[in-house]
Formats: sequence, C-alpha cells, structure tokens
Amino acid sequence: MLEHAHELLDRARRLILSRVERGFEVQTKADGSPVTSVDLEVEQMLREGLEERFPEHGIIGEEFPPHNPGADYQWYIDPIDGTHSFCAGIPLYGTILALHHRGRPELGLIDLPALGERYSASKGQGAWMNGKSIQVGEGVGEPIIATADRAQFQRVGREGALDRIMLRFPHVRAYSDCFGHAMAVRGSAGAMVDFGIRAWDLAASRVLVEEAGGRYEVVHQDGDRFCVILGRPAVVQAVLTCI
Amino acid sequence: MLEHAHELLDRARRLILSRVERGFEVQTKADGSPVTSVDLEVEQMLREGLEERFPEHGIIGEEFPPHNPGADYQWYIDPIDGTHSFCAGIPLYGTILALHHRGRPELGLIDLPALGERYSASKGQGAWMNGKSIQVGEGVGEPIIATADRAQFQRVGREGALDRIMLRFPHVRAYSDCFGHAMAVRGSAGAMVDFGIRAWDLAASRVLVEEAGGRYEVVHQDGDRFCVILGRPAVVQAVLTCI
Repeated sequence: MLEHAHELLDRARRLILSRVERGFEVQTKADGSPVTSVDLEVEQMLREGLEERFPEHGIIGEEFPPHNPGADYQWYIDPIDGTHSFCAGIPLYGTILALHHRGRPELGLIDLPALGERYSASKGQGAWMNGKSIQVGEGVGEPIIATADRAQFQRVGREGALDRIMLRFPHVRAYSDCFGHAMAVRGSAGAMVDFGIRAWDLAASRVLVEEAGGRYEVVHQDGDRFCVILGRPAVVQAVLTCI
Repeated sequence: MLEHAHELLDRARRLILSRVERGFEVQTKADGSPVTSVDLEVEQMLREGLEERFPEHGIIGEEFPPHNPGADYQWYIDPIDGTHSFCAGIPLYGTILALHHRGRPELGLIDLPALGERYSASKGQGAWMNGKSIQVGEGVGEPIIATADRAQFQRVGREGALDRIMLRFPHVRAYSDCFGHAMAVRGSAGAMVDFGIRAWDLAASRVLVEEAGGRYEVVHQDGDRFCVILGRPAVVQAVLTCI
C-alpha cells in the first residue's frame, strides 16, 4: 500500500508541476478559501487510482464527498495543501496522502513538488525523506517554531496562544500547511503549531512524526477543526507549557 | 558582468548542494550568529572569481574584510543568507550577489539552491526568474506579508512595528532572509519587511524589485543595520502607513 501511495504521489507531482508551468484557474469556495482547477484534477486522479486498486477502502478528501464511509481502511487526501501559497506562486504547498485503519494512522505521506521532497512513514517501519531515514533529533540552540498563519488561530479564537508562543520563542515562523509539518518531522523546526485545521490536513502527520521519534498532541477540537502540535518531544512540551 | 555573476552563482549552487549532501561544520561567530565552513568556502570561491575577472573592483562580503574599498564598482556577497535555516535543514537559504557603481545598484542576484530558483536584475533591463521576466503585479485579495523573524525586529527595538503589521494583515509570514525578498520581487508576497539587516543582505533587492515594477524603501538605519520594505507599491504604502 505504501508503494502504491508513492506511485500515486509521483503522478500527482508531475501533474501539479505541469499545471504550474502552463497556468491554472483560481475560484473561491463557499467558505471563502481558494480552490483551483488543479486541486480538483489531482484529487480526482488520486481517487481513481485508489478506487481501482482498493475498491473496498474508503476515501475522505478535501474537494469531493466521502467514498465508502463505513470501511475499516480510510484514505485521506489533500490534493494541494497550501492552496493560498500555491495560487501566489510560493513553492511551499504540497500533497498529503494517508491511510488509517479503524481510526489508527498506518501510512502518512507529504509530497512537496516544488522542493522535490517526499516525506513518508508507515507504522513501525520508520520515517523517510527521499529514501533517507529521518529523526526529529535533539536540536541545538533556540528552536525554530513553525506555525499556521495568524488568520488560522483567529478562526478558532486562539490568537492568545500564538501571542504567547511569540513572546517565549524568538524564531517563530508562519511556515503554514504541510511544509511546516514536514519541517517539524525532519527536525528542522523544533515544533509545528497548527490551529484550526481539518482531518485531511493532519492525517499524515501523527505517524510521520511518531516514526521520526517525535510527539504529536491534539490540544483542542471544535467540530471539524483541530489544533495540533508536533515535533521534538521537549519542544512540544515547552510549547504546551507556554500556551 | 551579469553573465559572469550567473556563472559564479552556478558554481556556488553546485558547491552548496554538494556540501548539504555530505554534511558540514557549524560554528558560532562573535555576535552569536552561526557560520558554517560552507559560508567561508563559498565566499572565498566568489571572491577569487571576481578578483580574477575584475581586479580593479571592490568586494564587500559577510565573512572577510573589504577588498579595494575605494573603487567605483563594488561587489556585495552574502555566501549563505539564512544560515540559521541552512544549518537547520530548511531549504529557504540562498546566495546574494550584487554590483553597485558609486553607490548605485546596477546588478542584483539571489540564488535559492534548494529550490532551483535564480532571481536576477540589471538596471534598466528588467527582472528575471530562471529566464522568465517577472513583475510584482497587482495581486488579488489579502496579500501575504513576508517578514524577518521577531528576533530581528527586537535587535533594533522595533517589535512594535511587527505587532502593528500582524494586527493589520491576516497573512504575515516570517519568510526570513533572501527567500522573503525573492517572494516579494516575484509578487508572491505583497511585501517583504526586513528589519535589522546589513548591507550585503539588501544589496541585490533594490534593483530586483524596482526592475520588477515594485517599490523599495529604507525606513530606518541605525549604524550598519537597515530596516527595509520592498514589494508591490500599494502594499509597501499600506505597510508604511500602519507602522
């Protein structure tokens, strides 16, 4: 299943980069967030690839209704996480693909097409970036803390948490979306603090960071919006303490 | 001279990526900032390339003393801008190379090795990214505002400016260093607000952003530390108004 996930993400990356080259349309969704023709095209391609290979599995994706919602195995898809960056031409967007079994994450993948970086993990088998084993490590000096945009904290009424983090840590960077998650998984950031996100935004991150020796905490849930912190255990603890 | 600058940055990129692959040493400078063996090696290579080709020109670089300080033509070198990111494994560092004539910027180049992006401009000849003409453009919706880390604003006692920017703009991202400058030059960010930086950090940015149709403002100077804002004219104006 991991091998198939890699193959699908290879296809997604090629599709995305070809659309960046040629240009694409941007529309606004009912919730005010942007969506592009590329989001729809990539999710459709991933769904078809998964349905063909695993017809009995369920699929939960950002742009289309759930498929087989009662199945034990559920795939999560975010075709372009970081659509705001993607539309603006900022190369820090990516594709998220994850597989959960009865609610437990089994596989987690983040692909960053513009950076040529692929993060993957499977339960009990370690975490990898482009074929190299990765660990969150111990870090040296003041950690970089990656966070969502302030607008995301405001959406769930938690700007105070961001303010406290910025007072405590000198290197707080709004490395939104899956780029921030990836930086925490590889230990480049001490932690990623992502507030107000949805199931497909975080579906790959728990298995990725835990397999890299890190800690994952859901600190708050309000309806379908989650607030999570992931990264080096000591830094996650320090962030939890300060918020 | 632009052609020679491109050739030197091609060599710098190859050198940097080979050192990332093989690993490198990190030390701490007198001012507490990190420096690596790669910073020294890249600046040495660039200096040798410039001295050989333009023996009468001056060179001002981050890691070594000035060369020919009285010359009309002065090259500025920052071998690795974003050393903190570079050491942490965050792919948003880059090399800056610029040429000024009697204090007026003539050439500006930013190379982002891990992203494979090269930004270049020469006075009166336009701004380019990987051979494509770029413009800051008009933008749609709320702009992304790139900024230095909070620690940089604190260094010059201007945290208040960052706080006011964060209250006014919902998408403020600490895209520090030349990555933030590049995002403003291509119009992906509405503006880059970089406080507390030195001559080599900003030497390429004025000609880059002006040739891309943007605006460049030095809002403050304290000794050898500069505070600059660059980007789309309307967004630069909005940032100036709110700080």
